[in-house]
This record gives sequence, structure tokens and C-alpha cells, in this order.
Amino acid sequence: MPVFPDAIQSLVDELRKLPGIGPKSAQRLAFHLIVAGKPAINKLISSLEEARDRVGYCSVCGNLTESDPCPICQDSKRDRTLICVVGYPKDVLAIERAGGYRGLYHVLHGYIEPLKGVGPEDLRTKELLARLGPGSPVKEVILATNPDVDGETTALYLAKVLKPLEVRVTRLARGLPFGADLDYADEVTLARSLEGRREVT
Amino acid sequence: MPVFPDAIQSLVDELRKLPGIGPKSAQRLAFHLIVAGKPAINKLISSLEEARDRVGYCSVCGNLTESDPCPICQDSKRDRTLICVVGYPKDVLAIERAGGYRGLYHVLHGYIEPLKGVGPEDLRTKELLARLGPGSPVKEVILATNPDVDGETTALYLAKVLKPLEVRVTRLARGLPFGADLDYADEVTLARSLEGRREVT
Repeated sequence: MPVFPDAIQSLVDELRKLPGIGPKSAQRLAFHLIVAGKPAINKLISSLEEARDRVGYCSVCGNLTESDPCPICQDSKRDRTLICVVGYPKDVLAIERAGGYRGLYHVLHGYIEPLKGVGPEDLRTKELLARLGPGSPVKEVILATNPDVDGETTALYLAKVLKPLEVRVTRLARGLPFGADLDYADEVTLARSLEGRREVT
Repeated sequence: MPVFPDAIQSLVDELRKLPGIGPKSAQRLAFHLIVAGKPAINKLISSLEEARDRVGYCSVCGNLTESDPCPICQDSKRDRTLICVVGYPKDVLAIERAGGYRGLYHVLHGYIEPLKGVGPEDLRTKELLARLGPGSPVKEVILATNPDVDGETTALYLAKVLKPLEVRVTRLARGLPFGADLDYADEVTLARSLEGRREVT
């Protein structure tokens, strides 16, 4: 005999599909929502519906947007000679939050992952090359992929592909993160921060 | 200028209201849902709608249910002389999962919390007393409130209120949890497990 109604169980099952939500969290969320009552559930439903109906991808940079092209691509105050290439829309948010960057973006929607069968043709590389074609104002492409295996693979591939084009290709700096402790830094980070050491001016 | 569409931001805001979901998790969930696409969002929406429309409270025990009375209250094989009093519907699930209990339940929907202004009149205590009125088959009430301050307060209050009635009032046993290590047990638990020691038979 089921202890809980099927409707709760299926809500728990749906919530469990979300990243980072285990069986216990899913149950707690479902109970919370049901106990919170209809108005709370309705607000969540309508925000899901809005996100579903209003959000799409920018045809230029691939970022999530409600208008096409997205506000960043449309912004005439942005530096059109710079394109920052990232893996996912959330990376755009991270860089914007850091402040200071005034160029454009290009979202790949993934990284090259041979083991998962994801190759360059599955990413938005063709669209990136199209933005760098004849007459393009772009002078520099910043490869801001994650500093891990997949991000490195993708950056190496893109660097190779972009080489023949008359464009400067750069990578984000590597080194010790702010607030780090030398004693706890891993070997790779420490080795890279030595390699990339800079003159004190 | 907003980096992300308002529709994503409002979804993030809604998700943040859920227990245990911080700003970073809410953002990750929102992105996951949007990238997962319309069918995934639609499944979540319809499970929320079902939970909203089909789940209510049992008028007898106060547990969450799709039918009233709930399947447990309706089950003729359940022992009607036993009522297990718990704080929340999820506690019914925990006890059912443990197996072995074949009586009925009574869900208080909270604990007495003077600091939050929650008194006995805010809980389903009146309904509990109604179930114990003249002609009631109930012989024992098990107070299965949490072993913390609020749970203790509530149990003490209920024990006092139930005293005049011709009903046995019990509490869940306290002691060392299964798999515990004496060395790591806290003082209160250890003291209680000594107090409640039992003859080896």
C-alpha cells in the first residue's frame, strides 16, 4: 500500500531529475511545496512557463536571451573587436559578474569530449568561424574555457583552427586563485603559476 | 543591463525560495531546466499541477492524501487501538519505511515553538482529543515527536493533556542509534541510553 499519494511520488521523481537533488532533497522539496500551498506552487509553475515560452538562444553568440540578437550583441557600447569564447551560458554570467570585460561573447554549448562522443561539430564552432570571416571587426578571441581536461582540449582545438585567421588568440591567465594558500595549492596550479610568473613593476 | 533574461531571473528567484536551495543551486537548476528544453519543463510543470490539484490533507489523521480519509485511516487491517502522533507528514513516511508499525497516525503539522509564537492551538491537538473521545477504540497514544527541544516540549504538553483520559501514553525509546560508536556518542544520548537500559533476556 502506498504511504504517499502517487501525485507526490511523481513530483518527487521529477525533482530528482534535477542536478544535485538526491532522493531526500527531492522529498523535502515536494513536501515543502505541497505544504506551502497552491499560491506557492502556482508561482513556481508560472515562472517555469515563462522561462519555457520566453527564453531562447541568441542566433549570434548562442547565449540565453529573450530577444534575438541578445542585449549584449545588440549593445553598441560593447567592443566589437573582442570575442570571449565560453562553454556555457552560465560562464557569460560569471564573466559579466566579475566586471571589466566589455567585448562580445560566443557560447560553444559544451566542450569537446571524445569519450562522450562530443566532437567540434557538435559545438558552435562553425558559428564562431562565421563571425571571424572576411570583413569581421574581430581582432582578438579570448578562449575562456574551463581549466580542466575538456576545456583544455577544446581550447587547443580552437587555437589550431583559428591560427590561419588574422586574429589574436589568447587564454585566461592561470595561477593561484585570490585568497589561496601556497601550502594547499595543487602541483599543477603551482607549476603553472611559476611558469606564468610576471615581473613586479 | 541585465545579462540574463528576466524570465530566467524570476525562475531563479522562485527556485531560491525552496528549502536548501541557495543562489548558486537555484541558478544551476534554472539553467539545467532551460537547457533541458520544453519537454523536461512541461513534465515538471504537470507534476506540480497534479500535486497541487490532487493532494490534500486527511480529515482524520492530517496526513497528505489523494483520498479522504487517507488509505491508512481507511485500511481495516490497521490496528485501531494505536495512534502514533508525529510532527509532519514526512514522519509518517519514515515510520512506515521502518516497517513493523500497524496502527494509525495523527499528524500535528508542527511543534510547539513559543519563540515563533506557535502554541498548542496552532497544532492539530483538538483533532487528536476528538479521536480519543467517549467510545474511542484507542488504547495507546505513541508520542513520536522529534528528540529535540520543540519535540520534547510538544510531547510533554500532550502527555499532560492526555493524562486524564483512559489511554496509555508512550514515547519512542531513546538510546544509541544502530551502528553508533560509544566514543562518539554525545553525553545526552549516552546518559539516556544508560537510564533506559534493559535486562538482557
